[in-house]
Amino acid sequence: MTPAIEVGVIGATGMVGQQFLRLLEGHPQFRPVWLAASERSEGRLYREAATWRLGGEPPSITEGARIEACTPGRGPRLVFSALDAAAADDLEPAFAAAGHLVVSNARSFRLMDDVPLLIPEINPDHLALIEVQRRARSWTGAIVTNPNCSTVVLAMALAPLRPFGIKAVLTTTLQAVSGAGYPGVPSFDIVGNVIPGIGGGEEEKIESEANKILGALADGRVTPHAAVVSAHTNRVPVIDGHTLTVSVSLDAATSVEEVVRAMRGWRGRPQELGLHSAPSAPLEVLDQPFRPQPRLDADRGRGMTVSIGRVRPCPVLGTKFVALGHNTVRGAAGAAILNAELMLAEGWLESR
Amino acid sequence: MTPAIEVGVIGATGMVGQQFLRLLEGHPQFRPVWLAASERSEGRLYREAATWRLGGEPPSITEGARIEACTPGRGPRLVFSALDAAAADDLEPAFAAAGHLVVSNARSFRLMDDVPLLIPEINPDHLALIEVQRRARSWTGAIVTNPNCSTVVLAMALAPLRPFGIKAVLTTTLQAVSGAGYPGVPSFDIVGNVIPGIGGGEEEKIESEANKILGALADGRVTPHAAVVSAHTNRVPVIDGHTLTVSVSLDAATSVEEVVRAMRGWRGRPQELGLHSAPSAPLEVLDQPFRPQPRLDADRGRGMTVSIGRVRPCPVLGTKFVALGHNTVRGAAGAAILNAELMLAEGWLESR
Amino acid sequence: MTPAIEVGVIGATGMVGQQFLRLLEGHPQFRPVWLAASERSEGRLYREAATWRLGGEPPSITEGARIEACTPGRGPRLVFSALDAAAADDLEPAFAAAGHLVVSNARSFRLMDDVPLLIPEINPDHLALIEVQRRARSWTGAIVTNPNCSTVVLAMALAPLRPFGIKAVLTTTLQAVSGAGYPGVPSFDIVGNVIPGIGGGEEEKIESEANKILGALADGRVTPHAAVVSAHTNRVPVIDGHTLTVSVSLDAATSVEEVVRAMRGWRGRPQELGLHSAPSAPLEVLDQPFRPQPRLDADRGRGMTVSIGRVRPCPVLGTKFVALGHNTVRGAAGAAILNAELMLAEGWLESR
Amino acid sequence: MTPAIEVGVIGATGMVGQQFLRLLEGHPQFRPVWLAASERSEGRLYREAATWRLGGEPPSITEGARIEACTPGRGPRLVFSALDAAAADDLEPAFAAAGHLVVSNARSFRLMDDVPLLIPEINPDHLALIEVQRRARSWTGAIVTNPNCSTVVLAMALAPLRPFGIKAVLTTTLQAVSGAGYPGVPSFDIVGNVIPGIGGGEEEKIESEANKILGALADGRVTPHAAVVSAHTNRVPVIDGHTLTVSVSLDAATSVEEVVRAMRGWRGRPQELGLHSAPSAPLEVLDQPFRPQPRLDADRGRGMTVSIGRVRPCPVLGTKFVALGHNTVRGAAGAAILNAELMLAEGWLESR
Repeated sequence: MTPAIEVGVIGATGMVGQQFLRLLEGHPQFRPVWLAASERSEGRLYREAATWRLGGEPPSITEGARIEACTPGRGPRLVFSALDAAAADDLEPAFAAAGHLVVSNARSFRLMDDVPLLIPEINPDHLALIEVQRRARSWTGAIVTNPNCSTVVLAMALAPLRPFGIKAVLTTTLQAVSGAGYPGVPSFDIVGNVIPGIGGGEEEKIESEANKILGALADGRVTPHAAVVSAHTNRVPVIDGHTLTVSVSLDAATSVEEVVRAMRGWRGRPQELGLHSAPSAPLEVLDQPFRPQPRLDADRGRGMTVSIGRVRPCPVLGTKFVALGHNTVRGAAGAAILNAELMLAEGWLESR
Repeated sequence: MTPAIEVGVIGATGMVGQQFLRLLEGHPQFRPVWLAASERSEGRLYREAATWRLGGEPPSITEGARIEACTPGRGPRLVFSALDAAAADDLEPAFAAAGHLVVSNARSFRLMDDVPLLIPEINPDHLALIEVQRRARSWTGAIVTNPNCSTVVLAMALAPLRPFGIKAVLTTTLQAVSGAGYPGVPSFDIVGNVIPGIGGGEEEKIESEANKILGALADGRVTPHAAVVSAHTNRVPVIDGHTLTVSVSLDAATSVEEVVRAMRGWRGRPQELGLHSAPSAPLEVLDQPFRPQPRLDADRGRGMTVSIGRVRPCPVLGTKFVALGHNTVRGAAGAAILNAELMLAEGWLESR
Repeated sequence: MTPAIEVGVIGATGMVGQQFLRLLEGHPQFRPVWLAASERSEGRLYREAATWRLGGEPPSITEGARIEACTPGRGPRLVFSALDAAAADDLEPAFAAAGHLVVSNARSFRLMDDVPLLIPEINPDHLALIEVQRRARSWTGAIVTNPNCSTVVLAMALAPLRPFGIKAVLTTTLQAVSGAGYPGVPSFDIVGNVIPGIGGGEEEKIESEANKILGALADGRVTPHAAVVSAHTNRVPVIDGHTLTVSVSLDAATSVEEVVRAMRGWRGRPQELGLHSAPSAPLEVLDQPFRPQPRLDADRGRGMTVSIGRVRPCPVLGTKFVALGHNTVRGAAGAAILNAELMLAEGWLESR
Repeated sequence: MTPAIEVGVIGATGMVGQQFLRLLEGHPQFRPVWLAASERSEGRLYREAATWRLGGEPPSITEGARIEACTPGRGPRLVFSALDAAAADDLEPAFAAAGHLVVSNARSFRLMDDVPLLIPEINPDHLALIEVQRRARSWTGAIVTNPNCSTVVLAMALAPLRPFGIKAVLTTTLQAVSGAGYPGVPSFDIVGNVIPGIGGGEEEKIESEANKILGALADGRVTPHAAVVSAHTNRVPVIDGHTLTVSVSLDAATSVEEVVRAMRGWRGRPQELGLHSAPSAPLEVLDQPFRPQPRLDADRGRGMTVSIGRVRPCPVLGTKFVALGHNTVRGAAGAAILNAELMLAEGWLESR
């Protein structure tokens, strides 16, 4: 059966664009029909213009496909954006103004007051910002974003702890090289090495985005969660999978068992609705020592599960653990697709 | 000129033993003359019994040398111990009882009340515990230890901050594979991967050893420093050099500039005495972003300098930075040799 | 539907054993019911005795399973052997004598005159050696082997070139660390490094096994192919996938196009019979430059396809190319399972 | 004592340029005084314009130095060229025409009939081509080149075998990422992976350059050696050090012992003249199995020694072995500096 809803991908030739196409292959609801990229590729065959970098064969949707210009107003109503921030700054609003629903992985609009920064398990209600956005900007379309690839892991690990009162969070990231895009990190810098610090304000993004996601929507405005967040970021020679060590201070004295129980029991709207890309449980708490590990665990739940391990008391902040997520699936293209699935289920894709 | 003082190395064939021999090659004061190892190697040529794993040629002292049995009472008065903890448990006290000065890298006795856990720049006065030890145990020799390879980096980074009052420390380590000895970590586990957690109580060692080192000696007893320390340990695919992200809470509001100034200005007894293995400054604070990195910075000061970078405010604990040290030099054999150099300079090697 | 044929795995806890269990999960014909290992694990729960090292969840067949002693005569008639050579030397003949069909990955009996060394696409007729073997050894069972993990890649790449007359072959291997088992290669030796030479007579194995596989069976005896083979082996820091550069001298002047056509058109009995583990084509010739690569291509055909690339003239031997195969699937457990599927299809699993 | 001869480096900010500066630090004869790079860096402080990528501190000569424009006629007579081929195509002849002695690592002119392609141990007499070059081109300066980083390893390993008659050579390279310059190979492509093929005609370069180097100069012209050479190139996740497996066919039946003896006994002009950068022996034959390895052996002879191992019979071509060299020292900047040292010793640096 042919999936009913036609979708486009803008920035379709880059790494995140390729992840979109790979994840949309065989999707039951979305059918990619429009692959757009920068003007200099327009009209070329996708398979000639783009080197497929993800292993195996390129998805069948790329066969014979030609690259379209990234022109607002053309292409399907629903477009996934794999643009980098520089391109997204101008193009995404233009697409939204032209009536497109832009489900974006770019960082450009994540922190705008009227743009949903969505993790469907955590803040599905923030989709209501679309109405605010449309009123404020006179758009018929909209922009919906997913968080930075490190933030998503942190926010999901923290979400079930909200009932205990999250006061402070200190995290150190060990980030995979695929998170830097392509060509990304030169191998001379990272083979047998570790690089402290990620460019582009990564630490600030983690520190601010997490609070917006965990925040409460009321009267058309998100009040950010009030946790103090501090991040140490690092690049490590890993292909896929961001590992975070996390120490967290909770309002109430909370035992390791309570934390584990809250994480294991946590479910959200995607699980309730049985969304196609939703893992059966958003978090998996591993009992084995020395886990989670990126090579062994990043693919859990087809890359949509965040794995937790080593939950134990932290002498300084109270509780500590390790969290791991697949940075180009749950942290990028998979996140956006889950966002679109939620939008579909909740009626946001219907004509205005 | 032949160095005057004959020394032995017990556990001379393993990785740390090899580091001892490499660092003692050409040492101006110590001349290794006695290479001891487990009984099953006794009498064999060193170069046949041990595969040299450190690159380049094995040091000249191994040429023609035969392995001796690890028998207390034989060999020189000063012995460096590269034994693993299981062997050290019994052998080191036996050597000390037989009159040897055992300068040990093993963890067995580090936390004993009457055993110096020494970083010559920080607590040279703790050597006075030797007297306590001798009285308590009726030894004519002694055991002097250096800290765990992660602790030494942390303790050195913290030492110049003592005047500001260190209340709490949260650290995440990214540890090199050489820290696990040989054969150590299987490559199947770590190539393109990260392993959270280090076995053998590594986190507890970091949390307790640092306070002992930073503690004050009075009346023959060390009162540990009272900082609360929490560690997240991880193994990364790096050969040499442990990287630590560190967040620290200080009593007084302290600016980044004050922290950097204190680190840069810090000198200790080894610098004062001009000890052979002492770097000109124990800490080097790098201004470049994305530094220190193990491959570029672990060898600073011939592996004896701890490099610091990215000093900046921490929203949660006040100050944060990255610290890096060479785990098999400053964190093992080089540490022990510097300990012996201090003992020599301060008169502890003279006959009883 | 429950698969009809019960099978056992001996050596079930090691790396190859785990690959067997992973690949048998959901197999349409074989149902693993008997997991045997060394005596000291007997009676223990599989999940407690063995650390699962292959990523994701251990297969359901391990749930609640207890480890059996490796006792000939017990367990199903068909057993897959993941034993190491030392254990296989004695145990495999004992199992065969006790009536078991031992489909083995061990090297112990590969070069015995009366033991099939099988690649089902190449020499399915060699299964007839089972009769010779039974007569010679008075066994009611049998031993059937698959080749070494490098040889299988080489032999498959060469098989379609037999019509051109293979005179000489020079290959250099770049072998993944999983080929060394577990714990295998110490990470200290291989991170950021390359090791020339693989222990255990790897080069000799490649040089002799390939000719046996490509040889012709007549009158109950295999006449080895007469190609002169020379191998340079190397270990590289790759998890899965052995890469081989191959230069080959053919009797007739043969163009690159003819070689590629022969490789692309090659099919064997497994494809004819539609065996479950058989890839649709045993070889895939990639047109892209810089391919095949282990990380991108080892999983083709669920690890059962050998990928070829860079076919071009060799100034010295005539033709050169790159070949890549998954060393623990097509080069170990997957190879043995395909062997058993062939045996089933050809009637060798029926009661004597 | 200040070294007497002032030198310049063009392309001083890139990876090879940095290697030049590192190796010239403390050089007894050459004093770098002129650091030139592309126009957009002109006038900037070297330390601000260039990120130092080689570990440790940048050499003292970069302190306070400003970048000069790459203008022929300015700067010292002797200039080392670290330009890439595109820039070298035009600039190097312009410098030579303006009277500079350009000692170049670029590939642009290596195969020109009148340009020396020099390995001082092998073909020091080829320097006489300078006269041919000057006559043909009416230059007062000259261009002298060193080979590609893989060729140099191969040619040095083969040089002592010339007396046995080298007929054919088949080599597979495992090349380090530093050979690709900076940013070079994206880490996403190479971490835990191997890439077959090196762009830029690497295999052809190896196949043709080796014969020119081993060729004989007579009547102002080099007759290339007549060996047939075939190369398989590969990139591996190693930082420094190219490993080559080599099979060679010699005219006469030659034993492994004869080959080893010839390699061990080989010396050239640099050893005779005691040139500063010359290793005591150009080749070192290691007896240990599993050697040479890049991480352990690339630095032998301060990166100027080529290490050989595993010399053994090759069933196909007669003799096989492994060769390893440091690709950015003996294969780039160190090679050029040794060339200049030879030119100095042989009188080529004196005024015309």
